Amino acid sequence: MSDTQEHKDKMKAVQARQRAKVAETRDPGRGLVLIHTGKGKGKSSSAWGVVIRALGWGQKVAVVQFIKGKWKTGERRFFEEHGGVTWHTMGEGFTWDTQDRDRDIAAAQAAFGKACDLMAGGDYDLVVLDEINIALRYEYLSVEAVLDGLKARSERTGVILTGRDAPEALCDYADLVTEMTEVKHPFQAGIKAQRGVDF
Amino acid sequence: MSDTQEHKDKMKAVQARQRAKVAETRDPGRGLVLIHTGKGKGKSSSAWGVVIRALGWGQKVAVVQFIKGKWKTGERRFFEEHGGVTWHTMGEGFTWDTQDRDRDIAAAQAAFGKACDLMAGGDYDLVVLDEINIALRYEYLSVEAVLDGLKARSERTGVILTGRDAPEALCDYADLVTEMTEVKHPFQAGIKAQRGVDF
Repeated sequence: MSDTQEHKDKMKAVQARQRAKVAETRDPGRGLVLIHTGKGKGKSSSAWGVVIRALGWGQKVAVVQFIKGKWKTGERRFFEEHGGVTWHTMGEGFTWDTQDRDRDIAAAQAAFGKACDLMAGGDYDLVVLDEINIALRYEYLSVEAVLDGLKARSERTGVILTGRDAPEALCDYADLVTEMTEVKHPFQAGIKAQRGVDF
Repeated sequence: MSDTQEHKDKMKAVQARQRAKVAETRDPGRGLVLIHTGKGKGKSSSAWGVVIRALGWGQKVAVVQFIKGKWKTGERRFFEEHGGVTWHTMGEGFTWDTQDRDRDIAAAQAAFGKACDLMAGGDYDLVVLDEINIALRYEYLSVEAVLDGLKARSERTGVILTGRDAPEALCDYADLVTEMTEVKHPFQAGIKAQRGVDF
């Protein structure tokens, strides 16, 4: 048998397996809950990637940022200019910059209140809760409150939660969990954070 | 010492460590090479996230897609409408759909030729080579050719390479490697790929 024929047969078999797998799947009839966690780069940026996918299909998107409050990031600049995304930055900057636990807790809880409205209101296909896992790690929010908020979301609404150290109870509830594992990072090699790449 | 004071002191120490680390970093004076690999979701979507970051800072971006040729994805719809990204989809669809190895090789090599022009031309801050690792895995491209193309890139140009099974030699050369690890995926639970989330 020629290489070409062998390749064709192999690909046919792969295609058949893939089609069978797809045929077994079903539409869940509700928005999914996705978690991007781990120490590697890509948790928030892949949320922005899903945002533009959703926008490409004409879906409605909201973002609540829990941590990067004061930073003017590339993503914020882009979405401010492009429009189409409801954007709330209710964090107060990185927590080591505020140094005021009470203020951080109040800010995180206000942000989460807003997030609950967006998730339950039925107006959005996708709500991104950016860096919410950090607010959970510092115990500015309780896992129970976040779970309750997710469960009370509109059927239409998918949610992405980002940040390292996602709590186990949230991962159990989620439909998808990706751990971004840092294999190699320029910061470790002494390379400065880059505009466009890192923020 | 009160909890509040303790928190403040702890955060001050974190802030000082963080500032010291940042102070030690330097600007590399060249575009970085980033690899998004692993089996988990988020490799391409985090590339799109970096694209919108770069666009937010007014940078110039090009994308070459090696695999998802015929699919009309949300990201393509979005960037076609939004403009500002040079977009080449030179793949012929998933490889198990074409079943013609010679055609696949020709398509991958044509796409890589285009990619080399974009990387070396000096007009772009960021070039995304989406799913190029799949073309490498099937040996449609050689690792050596891809390394040569990266080394010949303009100083200005950063490159993101996506797809599972990134070759070791590319990871050695890259500035950043993130492995997207699949902890839990809806497809495994029989949930159909979702518009906006998966494509």
